[in-house]
Formats: sequence, C-alpha cells, structure tokens
Amino acid sequence: MHIDFEELPRTSNEHFKGGDGVTNIRAFNDEINRIMKVTLERGSSIGLHKHENNSEIVFIISGKGKMITNGQAEELRAGMCSYCPMGSEHTLINIGEDELILFAVIPQHKQ
Amino acid sequence: MHIDFEELPRTSNEHFKGGDGVTNIRAFNDEINRIMKVTLERGSSIGLHKHENNSEIVFIISGKGKMITNGQAEELRAGMCSYCPMGSEHTLINIGEDELILFAVIPQHKQ
Repeated sequence: MHIDFEELPRTSNEHFKGGDGVTNIRAFNDEINRIMKVTLERGSSIGLHKHENNSEIVFIISGKGKMITNGQAEELRAGMCSYCPMGSEHTLINIGEDELILFAVIPQHKQ
Repeated sequence: MHIDFEELPRTSNEHFKGGDGVTNIRAFNDEINRIMKVTLERGSSIGLHKHENNSEIVFIISGKGKMITNGQAEELRAGMCSYCPMGSEHTLINIGEDELILFAVIPQHKQ
C-alpha cells in the first residue's frame, strides 16, 4: 500500500522531546510500525530520548543534521542512514541553513 | 549509528525471489531489523513473496517502479513510500528506463 505523507495530517511540535524549535511530523501508524516524514525547521532539534521496545531507522531526504546515538555523534546529509537500535537513545539536531527533512520508521519489536 | 551502504558488501541476485533480471542489495542486519539499499537493474523485478513474521517499508530514492501489494498495484517514483504489512505479499517491477533504487527496512515483529 502506498503511504502518501501529503495526505496525512501534519502535527507541528514545539520543543519536541525537549528539543529546540519546531519539528513537523506526518505519520502513518498501525500496531507494529510508525512510518513518518519529519521536518526539523532551521535551528530545531529533537531532544534525547530512548527507544525501549522499538528501534528507529532514519533516512535523510535533504538538509544537514547531527545525530548523537548513545553518546556517539555523526553528521548526516541527504542519502545517509542512521540507526537507533532497541534499547538505545538518540538526539537529532538540524545543523544546516535549511530545513532538515527525513524519512523514518519506528518498528515495534515487543508486543 | 551511521549505516554506510557503500561500505557494506553488495550481493547481486539474479531472478530475485523468482523475479526477472538482477537485483543488487547492500544490507545491514541485526536480530530485529534488515536495513537495505536495493537497486533493480533496468527490466528487473523482485518476485511475489509474503512477509510472515516481519513487514517491509520501502522508500524510493530514484527510478520508477510498480509495486503490487495483495493484488493492488501502485506506481512509485522518487520520494514515495510503499508499505507491506505483516502477513501481506508484494512484488516490485522496475518499469522505468533507468535503475530503480530504493531504501527499505524489514523489521521483525515476532521473535
């Protein structure tokens, strides 16, 4: 099935998970997956959070970000992939001049 | 953690899952996720297969494809997302003039 993010409602989250600025999310959810298109506005970040019963896979569509996973920093740009394994924690900062746009999947591994 | 697909070995699969042509895969695997960059050469397809204990989320990087999920066809191009829920079956055909390149995640939901 096709997931058309533009047809999904957009939630605009200020200080998402304790981060800075505004993070906009269009998400499809079922019981086992959360599938998202996420836009961090310029200067925005998603605060540090832990993935307890799920993991997160991020694919960068455009922009420039810094992901810190379990204390390890990595710079991300278009076409790059970052993985937060189950039980790990991460935070993402938009370090570019433009929006940081990404595709992300949060699969549930424990029901 | 950063997953650099270019650093991962490439497997070149002829008639992948019974499909046509050649499908090239660079994959990261752990016990709960398979995270891939997949290239279907021109004229190639991935045969019909069912996702029993996992699901698959596909994000098109470039090219033009036709996904048929549980008998429902959808045309896919860059930036589009296709979802095969657990228990569903799908097949993907490269219907463009170029390679079809995609990012895909296969999460395990039942251990």
